[in-house]
Amino acid sequence: MSLLAQPQSMLFETPLALSSGASIGGYRLAYETYGQLNAAKSNAVLICHALNASHHVAGVYAGQEHSQGWWDNMVGPGKPVDTDRFFVIGVNNLGSCFGSTGPKDLNPATGHAWGAAFPVVTVEDWVAAQARLLDALGIEQLAAVMGGSLGGMQALSWTLQFSQCVRHAVAIASAPNLSAENIAFNEVARRAIVTDPDFHGGDFYAHGVLPRRGLRIARMIGHITYLSDDVMNEKFGRELRNAVAGGDGYRYTTQDIEFQIESYLRHQGDKFSEYFDANTYLLITRALDYFDPARAFGGDLTAALARAQAHFLLVSFTTDWRFAPARSREIVKALLENRRHVSYAEIDAPHGHDAFLLDDARYLAAVRTYFNRIAQEVGA
Amino acid sequence: MSLLAQPQSMLFETPLALSSGASIGGYRLAYETYGQLNAAKSNAVLICHALNASHHVAGVYAGQEHSQGWWDNMVGPGKPVDTDRFFVIGVNNLGSCFGSTGPKDLNPATGHAWGAAFPVVTVEDWVAAQARLLDALGIEQLAAVMGGSLGGMQALSWTLQFSQCVRHAVAIASAPNLSAENIAFNEVARRAIVTDPDFHGGDFYAHGVLPRRGLRIARMIGHITYLSDDVMNEKFGRELRNAVAGGDGYRYTTQDIEFQIESYLRHQGDKFSEYFDANTYLLITRALDYFDPARAFGGDLTAALARAQAHFLLVSFTTDWRFAPARSREIVKALLENRRHVSYAEIDAPHGHDAFLLDDARYLAAVRTYFNRIAQEVGA
Repeated sequence: MSLLAQPQSMLFETPLALSSGASIGGYRLAYETYGQLNAAKSNAVLICHALNASHHVAGVYAGQEHSQGWWDNMVGPGKPVDTDRFFVIGVNNLGSCFGSTGPKDLNPATGHAWGAAFPVVTVEDWVAAQARLLDALGIEQLAAVMGGSLGGMQALSWTLQFSQCVRHAVAIASAPNLSAENIAFNEVARRAIVTDPDFHGGDFYAHGVLPRRGLRIARMIGHITYLSDDVMNEKFGRELRNAVAGGDGYRYTTQDIEFQIESYLRHQGDKFSEYFDANTYLLITRALDYFDPARAFGGDLTAALARAQAHFLLVSFTTDWRFAPARSREIVKALLENRRHVSYAEIDAPHGHDAFLLDDARYLAAVRTYFNRIAQEVGA
Repeated sequence: MSLLAQPQSMLFETPLALSSGASIGGYRLAYETYGQLNAAKSNAVLICHALNASHHVAGVYAGQEHSQGWWDNMVGPGKPVDTDRFFVIGVNNLGSCFGSTGPKDLNPATGHAWGAAFPVVTVEDWVAAQARLLDALGIEQLAAVMGGSLGGMQALSWTLQFSQCVRHAVAIASAPNLSAENIAFNEVARRAIVTDPDFHGGDFYAHGVLPRRGLRIARMIGHITYLSDDVMNEKFGRELRNAVAGGDGYRYTTQDIEFQIESYLRHQGDKFSEYFDANTYLLITRALDYFDPARAFGGDLTAALARAQAHFLLVSFTTDWRFAPARSREIVKALLENRRHVSYAEIDAPHGHDAFLLDDARYLAAVRTYFNRIAQEVGA
């Protein structure tokens, strides 16, 4: 039986000071919880989302059988993060577009949508906002904080910003910062959005249009970096979508779809451009760019992670070229140099960065084993 | 002393039948030659260009001291391809925008610029057009045909289409076809161009505009794939362009330049969008997509290359992830299975795909050695 999910929302009146120096008050966070908080309040697990996901981590909404949460294979009754034992919380990050306050909402100072004027938010800001939500829920310490990709960065940041409040951190397919190439891909996506005439400097809401062209390009670029070259070749290869009979099958066209991979990418881009907020895309990719805990320590990650007290599980995937195993190993090394407890699994999976969302048996087993240990430790 | 380059042009009235079934007549090819054709006409070397290059391979134009050809480090007096010994020919491909007939030229059938109606051209078509030029120059056999990237594909195709006319083929940083990921990057670039409102379905010439936004995005994507992650980290890393004094130095902006890599990419995109023809970009990326000599042999590259009679030098670069060494090795393997003479150098260079244009001593020495051998063989 599927878990029934119920979106909730909490309003925070007290302004939150942001990394940029700005602050934001009167904001809402959308969240969901699954399972029961135990009497000792020791079994809470916070799940942090990546670029285009939300608080809807697991389960389905009543009457919507295809509304599975984005990590429904990981979180739920009897699943690796077992909601029969843990109280699991998903939060939509500030600046996102799925229920928490973001650029498409009204800026109380102007009465118009925030648009590009929404304050720049960082991983650290998100973690600070999540901590306020946990306060409000009466949770003083997390059994674990967990996330993949950008979510893993939040998990890591939790252990630095609130080191006493986190027993375990699980960071999957993550990195201690973005490489120049990572930033470059983000920048191309942002330029595609910002230079779309329908972006209107971020005020497209008032014009009744969406910068679909830019969002499509951004999503297509993203998808290429989520998949491995191998899995793309296996799934699509050089297969034609609609080969002409006879001869070499080519239609000889520069603008129409010829190869299946083109059809797939265009479809992904079209879907995304209808539901994702363009200003949110800018904000979230910038949060990725800015994350760099070693920065304040002259680039010394070991020094940066000295504050962390949590125990860690890190997982990476061999074919992930967006956040390659070497990036996870940097974190492992820095934690070990601080004599922290670290488990690390490097999973030989073909799917690239996307693997963190997929059903790889070894991966799910590694997480399950780790959470069994946490459950014993916290009495869940 | 620099070689003085002199662009030339030749008109071909007889229609050329193209792979697509279309044909084109009354077209011009721009070309340059360096060195002297010997009496035996045995010392001709054809250089094929990649995406955004031209017939201007080597030397400078009179009075323009910074007008070096794109492979001036490789071709010239005393250089690896020594114009004191070889008669070297550079040709701008049909459909390009640097002097040969292309989309921005008048379509005689309509009296307007060809635009998107310019016929789709393939690597095979380019080779056929190059062969006509060589006929007109009185050259029956090439001492060598040489190119990097897409130029290497043309060199390979020469050995299949005109197997008796090529003694040696030198294919650098090349591949027997594009992978799904390669096609994907091309497709994103094309979509950025085609969905730019200033593209006007390819008829932007008549509107007095250029689809600069799309071309910028296309070029930025291209540049990311030309460089290795390592060299990007070394050249740009996470360096800020204009750090704010105090604090973490970030300006906290989603639309302005923050990192040096962003500045570099935007600059490359801006430059490119001013001089490169958008319809040519579509045509050339499609020629890349379509190249696949094994296609007519059910994917069997060994069977496809059985026709080749030339001797080969292949070169790849370890950090090239656009056309990785494994792709060159596929060609080497297929040639060896046909018992052809193959030399192969895998150069441990940090620069990614761009390495084929750069001054790596081992790379240049490998090419020099190979051309010394050719010179002895052909009496150059």
